[in-house]
Amino acid sequence: MPGHVTIDAVAGGTGPRDQLSVPTGSMQSAVLVGKVGERLADRWQAESSLLGSMCAHALVPSGKLFRPILLLESAMAVGGDADVVLPAAIGAECGHVASLVHDDIIDNDDLRRGKPSVQYKFGADNAIVAGDALIFDLFAALAECRTTGAQPDRIVAALDVVARCGIDLCRGQSLEAEIRERMDFDLDAYLTMVKLKTAALFKGACECGALLAGGEDHMVRALGEYAENLGCAFQIHDDVMSYTVDTDVMGKSDTSDIRNGRLTLPVILAYWESDPDGRQAITEVLVDDGDPIVRRDTLMEILERTGAITAAAQRAVQYSRDAIDALRALPPSPSVDRLRGFAQAAIDRDR
Amino acid sequence: MPGHVTIDAVAGGTGPRDQLSVPTGSMQSAVLVGKVGERLADRWQAESSLLGSMCAHALVPSGKLFRPILLLESAMAVGGDADVVLPAAIGAECGHVASLVHDDIIDNDDLRRGKPSVQYKFGADNAIVAGDALIFDLFAALAECRTTGAQPDRIVAALDVVARCGIDLCRGQSLEAEIRERMDFDLDAYLTMVKLKTAALFKGACECGALLAGGEDHMVRALGEYAENLGCAFQIHDDVMSYTVDTDVMGKSDTSDIRNGRLTLPVILAYWESDPDGRQAITEVLVDDGDPIVRRDTLMEILERTGAITAAAQRAVQYSRDAIDALRALPPSPSVDRLRGFAQAAIDRDR
Repeated sequence: MPGHVTIDAVAGGTGPRDQLSVPTGSMQSAVLVGKVGERLADRWQAESSLLGSMCAHALVPSGKLFRPILLLESAMAVGGDADVVLPAAIGAECGHVASLVHDDIIDNDDLRRGKPSVQYKFGADNAIVAGDALIFDLFAALAECRTTGAQPDRIVAALDVVARCGIDLCRGQSLEAEIRERMDFDLDAYLTMVKLKTAALFKGACECGALLAGGEDHMVRALGEYAENLGCAFQIHDDVMSYTVDTDVMGKSDTSDIRNGRLTLPVILAYWESDPDGRQAITEVLVDDGDPIVRRDTLMEILERTGAITAAAQRAVQYSRDAIDALRALPPSPSVDRLRGFAQAAIDRDR
Repeated sequence: MPGHVTIDAVAGGTGPRDQLSVPTGSMQSAVLVGKVGERLADRWQAESSLLGSMCAHALVPSGKLFRPILLLESAMAVGGDADVVLPAAIGAECGHVASLVHDDIIDNDDLRRGKPSVQYKFGADNAIVAGDALIFDLFAALAECRTTGAQPDRIVAALDVVARCGIDLCRGQSLEAEIRERMDFDLDAYLTMVKLKTAALFKGACECGALLAGGEDHMVRALGEYAENLGCAFQIHDDVMSYTVDTDVMGKSDTSDIRNGRLTLPVILAYWESDPDGRQAITEVLVDDGDPIVRRDTLMEILERTGAITAAAQRAVQYSRDAIDALRALPPSPSVDRLRGFAQAAIDRDR
């Protein structure tokens, strides 16, 4: 779709609520995104093994390629050439898809992007190996940047950033499990988890693109700050939307968070706004295994009474503003305009 | 233990049969191995999170550090400085341990290195994330070589090699599942699987060390060839030992391969040496779910009758010789002597 890209928001997102369409503002961007999609489709297609089948199944048809887009736009925002960083953009999607493949095992999700998940189609054991292969492929793709003109010292700097962001992603996933396990309503722990789980890969993509393209230190830092705030805005808006999206549009009440016992920002804010009885009601709704629709209705009543949904939405807005502010350190360019657009779109989805 | 290192053979090996002790021939090697162990112990110890606990549990106490040793000796064999490649050696162990953590989920193994496996202690879902973090940490460690004096273009070349070897490892794991699933006695498929699953990380370690240390192309290739043959010798000798090691020494009959339906080289060779009745007997033993001791005894009788154990052992000897031959391309040095010793020790274990 030249002139527009539709982007999905966060790891794990598949529903319509995770998508948004923002103008790319240029044919060049659309062409680049098309290239990334084609290369991803080719990457494992020729390998007729079980591993090849699994990786191709996971990568194709591709999602909205938001992390590759962030990487490419960041490279251009620092004055670099998108073709130089193209392999790394492909790698960013491999890394993201790897996390989805493993997430689907952990969450026992059978569907991904409208078709059977890797774990459902090939079994959890095989899916573990497929996810691992895609993590390695992220780094294989990064190494390919030496054939497109990136400087070796920049590739090594990007390697450092990407590896550390990958570890942060794991820290976030593990912290999420801890929070769920001990039913922890601590706000700081939640915000740290979002920063690690969702924002880390955004940050890795932006910093990687900027580094490979030869960006100056202050530009790399600015794009990292932008991405971290963007990631938090996205995730929190996603949290909010799980309570505000019209169930008629979604086709059904969204009860997945309830069923998974996942703590969202609105729930955490409502908890701290509630009296002891309210807190107990929230806890019961989450640990209960009764009808999720009934539990959701109870929770909605508390969320509305405490104003927690609005309070959470305001935090998403603030993160979006902070993301946009961070871009001020960069010289004006169409890419910076588009990055700014993403930060706005992050909190405008489905409203 | 200065002057000696005890090395474990293959991914998945925990029993006494997987260990061998070869003279290091120098204090320097022993000191280096000690350094790797210390750094590994420090690496995740300070992180009090669930992820930190899991990674520290998996890495400490360390195994025999054979992949780090291969990497360090390869660097010295091409005339390089071991301290320059030390972070990569640490990374090699992180990558190896990552594969063990995920293998233990796949094989549902509760014990690893004499203590509870990560999946047993922390659950499979958390163990997936821990393994992922250790893969990322392999690459974070590789990037650290820029602080020890490695050239950026060499780090990028090593990145390429390590990422591709990691993908090969996954290909091997996935192929092993395919072979088991369709009960495939194809010899070529088995040998390909061994080359990918066991030899790939050996190859990655040796080539990575040689590349980072500034080795010439022909030296890097020679060490890669050495490592690939070494890995095959190790794995096949391991296969053979599962039928030849004294059960009194092991404390029990080794029936894990039988229970897991795993095809080993002796079984495959016996299959092709057998008449239709013998082939059916082999197949039945593997798919049967009766007493593993009885099944093992039946299988042993067939293996002995067909001479398959001896034939498999001869192949291991040939791989060991090929590994030693590959070292001829390198200038004589104490490191080359030690690498040669590893190839000999690979087929001399527990005889």
